[in-house]
Amino acid sequence: MINICVFGLGYVGLPLALSFSKKFNTVGFDINTKRIMKLKKNIDDNKEFLSKDFKNKKIFFSSNIDDIKKCNYYIICVPTPINQNKEPDLSALKKSFSALKNLIKKNDTIIVESTVYPGVTNMFGNYIEKNSKLKKNKDFYLCYSPERINPGDNTKKLRKIDKIFSTETNNGKKINDIKRIYKLVSKKIIFSKNIAESETAKVIENIQRDLNIALFNEILIICDRLNINFNEVIRLASTKWNFIKIKPGLVGGHCLPVDPYYLSHVSKLNKFKLITTLAGRKTNSYMKYYVLKKFKSFTKKNNIKKKFKFFFFGLL
Amino acid sequence: MINICVFGLGYVGLPLALSFSKKFNTVGFDINTKRIMKLKKNIDDNKEFLSKDFKNKKIFFSSNIDDIKKCNYYIICVPTPINQNKEPDLSALKKSFSALKNLIKKNDTIIVESTVYPGVTNMFGNYIEKNSKLKKNKDFYLCYSPERINPGDNTKKLRKIDKIFSTETNNGKKINDIKRIYKLVSKKIIFSKNIAESETAKVIENIQRDLNIALFNEILIICDRLNINFNEVIRLASTKWNFIKIKPGLVGGHCLPVDPYYLSHVSKLNKFKLITTLAGRKTNSYMKYYVLKKFKSFTKKNNIKKKFKFFFFGLL
Repeated sequence: MINICVFGLGYVGLPLALSFSKKFNTVGFDINTKRIMKLKKNIDDNKEFLSKDFKNKKIFFSSNIDDIKKCNYYIICVPTPINQNKEPDLSALKKSFSALKNLIKKNDTIIVESTVYPGVTNMFGNYIEKNSKLKKNKDFYLCYSPERINPGDNTKKLRKIDKIFSTETNNGKKINDIKRIYKLVSKKIIFSKNIAESETAKVIENIQRDLNIALFNEILIICDRLNINFNEVIRLASTKWNFIKIKPGLVGGHCLPVDPYYLSHVSKLNKFKLITTLAGRKTNSYMKYYVLKKFKSFTKKNNIKKKFKFFFFGLL
Repeated sequence: MINICVFGLGYVGLPLALSFSKKFNTVGFDINTKRIMKLKKNIDDNKEFLSKDFKNKKIFFSSNIDDIKKCNYYIICVPTPINQNKEPDLSALKKSFSALKNLIKKNDTIIVESTVYPGVTNMFGNYIEKNSKLKKNKDFYLCYSPERINPGDNTKKLRKIDKIFSTETNNGKKINDIKRIYKLVSKKIIFSKNIAESETAKVIENIQRDLNIALFNEILIICDRLNINFNEVIRLASTKWNFIKIKPGLVGGHCLPVDPYYLSHVSKLNKFKLITTLAGRKTNSYMKYYVLKKFKSFTKKNNIKKKFKFFFFGLL
């Protein structure tokens, strides 16, 4: 019998937990007791789900680690941000695996959904192996399935997003069970037999996006300086067959401003300094000051105080 | 009567000259006397054209400036490279305009096809105005139509490439004549009323490409260091809806390694330092050393001396 626990109920974990619980007993676990209290009342403060979305689900929300003892599938969706030195902060992942090493039983499965740099999932797998006396991909199973959730984008609902799933086991029964579980999440699963490849794929998706937005931001700024119509420039350039049209803007969220530092961290550990990967970060970080500066000069010039929103959308 | 002169008969100028000369008297002018001697014999050393392509054309090749005295349309296709300090080298453009200031007559038209940074075409237009006593866009006409030729790519023949054409005149007759001339070059002309916008559009097309290839090069190198299958990573990442698949490789040619420096030059003049725009340059310049290094270790390991080509294509 499949009993699932989802660790971390943020914008990644909650949609997964609600999807799994359509069919399987699911414990939604989070250390944030306030969040759990609200979820127990069918309230999602992230406003991604309505009260009705919690109905008819086999879900139980908890902050108590004892409540997940019966689970055999652990889906890790905890945050993996960067610290003040812009290095990966894996502390939430560490806490989850530290709890798991005591809970894990023979034949259990751990699936990491959090963004990590290549090598992290297996590093934690080895940690479990060392501390539980269970052998990886023999006694317990390790998988990586990077989240691709696009918060706030209603055109990209979870089920419609193609999902990568990687596991290094050849156990056919296990793979079948995983397929049964994950088909509740996405219509199309792309399998990989190599976890590091999936970990890399995840970060480069966001790195490419961050970099390209940065380029458009830089072009926006230089057009502004030279008094050239940015939109017209993009209209013209877009007539080239291989030009990729991207909107400039403020880059926020949990992924884009973070993922370049994840890849650069592992690269640094391997004595290779990434240049292009990190190049977008400085430009995109500068954008908020640029927007603020433009806003100030605009309001001053026009003696307007309240049209922030109109100006903001007009610019971006 | 329309008489055309094409300045510079490289990979940009020659195809244009051959296209124009299907219908209009055209002088193909180049200071390279050896090139002219060959072209007179219907030989294109760039191997883009066969002898038969020169047949039934109203074309005359020359290195003698006196031969273009009857022309009234001057199409400037001279090289605009960078110098040793990686700054724009506009010397060929300067020479062309220096010759033009003595040749230009009332109602003549100058069309720049060379890649420049925003502002350059009008800067040279003002130079003509100052030295010829003819008024820009009144007595003579100034246009910018950036070349988008893709040397060696047979799927992108000149006529099939959409072409930007910008001129700041409102003279309807002149615009009609331009349309008659340029429809020989491209099936689709995109008009712009602002030269600086077209100049910017041209450089950003190539900057974007250079930057994205650099990112893929960097990912290729880090995958290699971490012993991760690059092709598999790209296969996985490509399943995301907004991932842009690009081939890593050596970046050469006349545009990609040059254009980032053109935009950064004008940006520097305007006291704004470009970061993202230039980020690809270092990575792409490093690639030849990387390929060489990999090649050496491959041949050493496999004791192979002649399989260069196979290895090279396998890697890229």
